[in-house]
Amino acid sequence: MREMHVAVLLFAFALTGTTLALDNGLMRTPPMGWLAWERYRCDIDCENDPKNCISENLFMDMADRLAEDGWKELGYVYVNIDDCWSSKQRDDQGRLQPDPKRFPGGIKKLAHYLHNRGLKLGIYGDMGKLTCMAYPGTPLDKIELDAQTFADWEVDMLKYDGCYSNAMEQELGYPLMSKALNATGRPIGYSCSWPAYQGGLPPKVNYTQLGEICNLWRNYGDIQDSWDSVLNIVDWFFENQDALTPAAGPGRWNDPDMLIIGDFGLSMEQSRSQMALWAIMAAPLFISNDLRTISSGAQSILRNEMAISINQDALGIQGRRIVKEKSGIEVFWRPLSKNASALLFFSRRTDMPYRYTTSLSKLSYTAGSYKVFNVFTDETASLKDSTEFVVSVNPTGVVMWYVSAPAKFNLRQFYQGGTLHGRVYDDREENAIPRVFL
Amino acid sequence: MREMHVAVLLFAFALTGTTLALDNGLMRTPPMGWLAWERYRCDIDCENDPKNCISENLFMDMADRLAEDGWKELGYVYVNIDDCWSSKQRDDQGRLQPDPKRFPGGIKKLAHYLHNRGLKLGIYGDMGKLTCMAYPGTPLDKIELDAQTFADWEVDMLKYDGCYSNAMEQELGYPLMSKALNATGRPIGYSCSWPAYQGGLPPKVNYTQLGEICNLWRNYGDIQDSWDSVLNIVDWFFENQDALTPAAGPGRWNDPDMLIIGDFGLSMEQSRSQMALWAIMAAPLFISNDLRTISSGAQSILRNEMAISINQDALGIQGRRIVKEKSGIEVFWRPLSKNASALLFFSRRTDMPYRYTTSLSKLSYTAGSYKVFNVFTDETASLKDSTEFVVSVNPTGVVMWYVSAPAKFNLRQFYQGGTLHGRVYDDREENAIPRVFL
Repeated sequence: MREMHVAVLLFAFALTGTTLALDNGLMRTPPMGWLAWERYRCDIDCENDPKNCISENLFMDMADRLAEDGWKELGYVYVNIDDCWSSKQRDDQGRLQPDPKRFPGGIKKLAHYLHNRGLKLGIYGDMGKLTCMAYPGTPLDKIELDAQTFADWEVDMLKYDGCYSNAMEQELGYPLMSKALNATGRPIGYSCSWPAYQGGLPPKVNYTQLGEICNLWRNYGDIQDSWDSVLNIVDWFFENQDALTPAAGPGRWNDPDMLIIGDFGLSMEQSRSQMALWAIMAAPLFISNDLRTISSGAQSILRNEMAISINQDALGIQGRRIVKEKSGIEVFWRPLSKNASALLFFSRRTDMPYRYTTSLSKLSYTAGSYKVFNVFTDETASLKDSTEFVVSVNPTGVVMWYVSAPAKFNLRQFYQGGTLHGRVYDDREENAIPRVFL
Repeated sequence: MREMHVAVLLFAFALTGTTLALDNGLMRTPPMGWLAWERYRCDIDCENDPKNCISENLFMDMADRLAEDGWKELGYVYVNIDDCWSSKQRDDQGRLQPDPKRFPGGIKKLAHYLHNRGLKLGIYGDMGKLTCMAYPGTPLDKIELDAQTFADWEVDMLKYDGCYSNAMEQELGYPLMSKALNATGRPIGYSCSWPAYQGGLPPKVNYTQLGEICNLWRNYGDIQDSWDSVLNIVDWFFENQDALTPAAGPGRWNDPDMLIIGDFGLSMEQSRSQMALWAIMAAPLFISNDLRTISSGAQSILRNEMAISINQDALGIQGRRIVKEKSGIEVFWRPLSKNASALLFFSRRTDMPYRYTTSLSKLSYTAGSYKVFNVFTDETASLKDSTEFVVSVNPTGVVMWYVSAPAKFNLRQFYQGGTLHGRVYDDREENAIPRVFL
């Protein structure tokens, strides 16, 4: 969707100091769209479950909804196939082919269907002998062929999973696919599951390299349709924020996996929390639900323009947890362009709304007067850094603010730390906090 | 609400073979109403949180909603105070007194406010030196005085908690309070927290005795505003169903604690699941939420008349889990009057709707043709016992049926077991299943 800009690329070169292997110029902000897996899994029973099985009809249905119901205009443009789309056999020229019964029109025709509606098509492959659900994989000797096939089909994105391969094969395969995609000449967004298969952390995972070869990468396990799963993912990402946040930036994103908003397991509070936390994380926003039947409540959360704009901020800096109170209240912060920032108050409590008292100066904001915009209520306020305020945070819920400010932000201090002003912090967090952002 | 009937009492005598200590004739079906604790806890900060603090205003607000919004007509008639209502000091005659700032009109006036609206008032005491939140308790030497005070105030129900007392004091105190309430001459529903403090299971807990002295009792820990908490409670009650189900019946109920529907932690699916499981369990239905702001979705679940009628079935037999599949599907069953029954299909999965195939005969229904009414969709169907059917059960959700049938039900076989027809059961469940219900 967004074309490569020379200035941006030069900046990227300057940062990394190495040759950029993936030069597709895509995904300067986190990609947004729809992905089949969490909601539809490997349902191939089109006879008994025709509306929900993995078939071209499902993807065309979702494309219709994205295009006709205003999702596309909000940025949700990718329609992504996951596992179980292909035939169990390659064709007589060794190429992957879709299941003929479920995709009788073929992938290229499906891509055209999407392109005609201003959407993009994502497809799924696996760096190994087999996909996770035992469909044909794309091992080392098939990478160039399959990349060319995807390009021939006019696919716009590839999720490259990692089942049925070992660490050494992955070390060869993920960069090789990056080069192969580049070599096709077609800009294809590249999602790498590699780090998730290697524990997600340095030194086993080299995030500098990942930023050079992939547009996004799954760091951690699959999301499930439960609040426990969301919390587990959030815990992991923020406990490891020192390792993860520097990896993110325009064109290269940590991916905590799909949004399950609109499915079965989250309350409205929890849905707002996932949306807000994914915005703080500068995470890809891939919905995985049934857009044909989604409730208005879930829609209003997924369509929240301020949350989306925070997620899509041009700086592309991934936010961090800056406070972890013993009361179960946590505060997250993300610097945004125009010296603005996002502040998120989150409650892990399971009893009743908690009245949390703090001030912007306690949250290390510099002196001054700020304008605060409440993302989920549209309320606004002016707030001095020294003014004590109370936010009432619902159990498992959030209060999210967009804070516009005259304050200047110092990227170097954000990563290198400074001094910290008087709050009680969890011990584990002591070393993980951006100290001063002047 | 319901007066004592001689025939019913004679039946109760015949069953228990002992003197009935609690002869208030109340709660022949599980009590329904509203209880402050889960949602409002010990919020006494009326200065900063006037709409939510424990005060007469809160209970009058809820009474208005119950009376004016049609909840009362559905059976939700109790308005129950929990902890933190009283002054920290007894009055100069040694009697409990409400906090004068938060209950300036006093409890008797509040009771009249409720009675004038066709509602009933519940209050809270503690069998021990202090309540759980350290307000004055009702230890052994205060039981008669406090029972009389509650009666003088025209209170209709007492929840008698068990903090700050030991097992021996509880063994004396809970029966003594039962007698003291009886001695006042006022019918006061009696909720005993005793078993929850003694592990909830025989031999430490004597459910025969509890049925003689209490109308309901808390067997297990407090519910919290989370799906995990609901699951934890459901697991405990059904893993111990052999010990618990025989204890329940008209006038005496196991209490798995409040409904958290309309609060912050449950999705709509999970809300339907709690309502359905509480109906299967013949559980008291005490809502604990904000009836001033509850969503229409939550309301429609709490107001579901078929679910309520199953909960309130006159036989008062607590249902059981009869199938526990490795797929995560569980089936629950409750026999109802008129040879009807409730069937509940529940999914513990967190992926996608699961298509579960079974038949009524596999679920041990006797031969014949049944009418099936879907509680949450209003669909109806006719179904032969031998007909294989598929129910699609959403993750963390339920499908609940009212099954009307010509079949005769044998209560003795329900508790004593019979033979079991070909299904895969979890080992732990093997001995806990009602085998044949002819």
